[in-house]
Amino acid sequence: MISEQYRAMLSGKSVIRELSEYATARGKEIGYENVFDYSLGNPSVPAPKAYNDKLIELISTGDPMLVHGYSPSLGIPAVREKIAASLNRRFGTDYKGADIFMTSGAAGALAHAFRLVTAPGDEILTFAPFFPEYNPYINLTGAKLRVVPASFADFQINFDAFEQMLTPRVHAVLINTPSNPSGVAYTSETLQALAGVLAAKEKEFGHEIWLISDEPYREIVFDGKTIPYAAAFYPRTISCYSFSKSLSLPGDRIGYVAVNPACGVSAMLATMCGQISRGIGHNCPTALMQLAAADCCDLTADLSVYETNMNILYDALTSLGFEIVRPGGTFYMFPKALESDAVAFCKKALKYDLILVPGDSFGAPGYFRIAYCVDTEKIERSIDAFKRFVAAEY
Amino acid sequence: MISEQYRAMLSGKSVIRELSEYATARGKEIGYENVFDYSLGNPSVPAPKAYNDKLIELISTGDPMLVHGYSPSLGIPAVREKIAASLNRRFGTDYKGADIFMTSGAAGALAHAFRLVTAPGDEILTFAPFFPEYNPYINLTGAKLRVVPASFADFQINFDAFEQMLTPRVHAVLINTPSNPSGVAYTSETLQALAGVLAAKEKEFGHEIWLISDEPYREIVFDGKTIPYAAAFYPRTISCYSFSKSLSLPGDRIGYVAVNPACGVSAMLATMCGQISRGIGHNCPTALMQLAAADCCDLTADLSVYETNMNILYDALTSLGFEIVRPGGTFYMFPKALESDAVAFCKKALKYDLILVPGDSFGAPGYFRIAYCVDTEKIERSIDAFKRFVAAEY
Repeated sequence: MISEQYRAMLSGKSVIRELSEYATARGKEIGYENVFDYSLGNPSVPAPKAYNDKLIELISTGDPMLVHGYSPSLGIPAVREKIAASLNRRFGTDYKGADIFMTSGAAGALAHAFRLVTAPGDEILTFAPFFPEYNPYINLTGAKLRVVPASFADFQINFDAFEQMLTPRVHAVLINTPSNPSGVAYTSETLQALAGVLAAKEKEFGHEIWLISDEPYREIVFDGKTIPYAAAFYPRTISCYSFSKSLSLPGDRIGYVAVNPACGVSAMLATMCGQISRGIGHNCPTALMQLAAADCCDLTADLSVYETNMNILYDALTSLGFEIVRPGGTFYMFPKALESDAVAFCKKALKYDLILVPGDSFGAPGYFRIAYCVDTEKIERSIDAFKRFVAAEY
Repeated sequence: MISEQYRAMLSGKSVIRELSEYATARGKEIGYENVFDYSLGNPSVPAPKAYNDKLIELISTGDPMLVHGYSPSLGIPAVREKIAASLNRRFGTDYKGADIFMTSGAAGALAHAFRLVTAPGDEILTFAPFFPEYNPYINLTGAKLRVVPASFADFQINFDAFEQMLTPRVHAVLINTPSNPSGVAYTSETLQALAGVLAAKEKEFGHEIWLISDEPYREIVFDGKTIPYAAAFYPRTISCYSFSKSLSLPGDRIGYVAVNPACGVSAMLATMCGQISRGIGHNCPTALMQLAAADCCDLTADLSVYETNMNILYDALTSLGFEIVRPGGTFYMFPKALESDAVAFCKKALKYDLILVPGDSFGAPGYFRIAYCVDTEKIERSIDAFKRFVAAEY
């Protein structure tokens, strides 16, 4: 019989998708260039030429049985080696190829990570504001996502609330740094403190607590800084990565799971991912994208536009009176709305053709998300709309 | 904590994989060209030039935001339309784009189909001999696979056994035509009779029974025949397809689910697939492969070598005394072993560097599988090994 569980989900509309559809429809009325569509986190810069060149080289001159052939279920061995070596060069880690499992983007990586270390009924904690897709990603595994309230002053971790919610039912903690929707990266101090709490609670509970680190925005970092690498702080860390944002190719569905060798069972966990794949129909990312991404894994697309956009918006909005925690990276920011009801706030913004997403579904009512992966020229034109909006409504 | 369920699976070795690893190791000793490796079902012909040309055209001149951008979760609308139109042209069906859901190969398609129409605890029936990966594919969803014994004379359906096992607990029936491992395609009579049984039992049980048709080998057909299209016989059919074999690109992970519009809720089911994706981390096949495969969906690679190989092996083995149901397609055949213990039989064959897979894991002890996606020249050389094997051992 038709699954009631999935049929019921059809009526649950995504706020982001609804707003994006509104923006498209409005664009047909007034020209999409006049809609200040800040709804979608969709990379706005092209993939690097080196990646396209590598794809073409592989297709034109590669062994067709390798380029179009089945990849081993854990990924192509040389690809796993290259990614381990790149991580080790950049983060001083000690991965081997055997610790890497190739996936179809971060969604594929997370689907494996959750199943690796939780069973149905277990709890996974994450921190507001958080990416709302974590709800179906986790709850459909049978585990249960619980959301720790935000630390609104800095979007680091609210440790009081965290420790209260960290009961023996919790078997994994999920972080996203730098974060969708806040753009904030966890500091070394935050990660150190987090690791300390997890280690203490593992001892108290007598069972392992795994840290799952979702880091597709790891390479989009501002102000010339580097951001701390989560796995460096805690041995039982499973890093979930996607090249979607760093190489600007979300359609290519290529990413990986990297299991911290300090946990002592990293190769076993990577191998277990291959078993999980059999149940969820994963069966490797494309061989072609594995080969090309591994070749380009030290590159990024030209990501500088996101910092340019962030600066324009941050300066303009703070001077209009918005409270914003300054993003350390990504292409998001998460200002406080000018009234307590962010849904009402975002609805009013539509009158000025500003498409903003209320923070409620991110676990932070009263705030809103701006996805500024948009042409800079449009960002600049939108400032006047923000000015008119604030002047007229607040 | 680390999942016991998936950890336990690590000790379960795949017979096919073990034999394939043996063949590789043996190849290092005597040269792989001297190992008659019939273990793996891995396409042995290159993808068509038109497909590679299309990939290169898209990468070189396509809009990078389309080629490397997020696909909608159900697939790119124009791609879904093209595939529906191709099916309608070829099979006289009436699909719309909305009935098609793009997937990462057949494994991805099946992962969605099972979840669409069964809940944990439900039974799915399939027919021996069957592809052994159906076990983890289905059992890890929480549903339960049960295997109907083979009709050994023709590898059609053993209807007596089927009707006995078709209890009210069964909510879906899974077929694979033409079949891995037998190479046999179901006849119109078989599909007609199957549809009749399902319709009668739906009435008797008062609930729907869905037919899930796994058809990655649909385009590899011998003797100039066409094979019947399963969905034409039964309204509640979900067809699961992969371009892996027809276009010879298993590494490209591109396929689809097509829901028969005659079921009345086809677009709803295709849309539900997008919800299932959120729980299993599927999130679309690559945009690039969607676009290229849709453009080539009426083409195939040069598949004629498989028929050539089948004829050489079929003639040689039958003249050596093997009983074989002549394959109608695929690159498999499934002869009866020359002793009742096919495991012992295949072990003896190793002495002659013939790598054959015992039928036990396919649900048909006493038989063995030959995957003849191998160079014809090697097939010809293997005949002498078969002759020496049979002469010396039987």
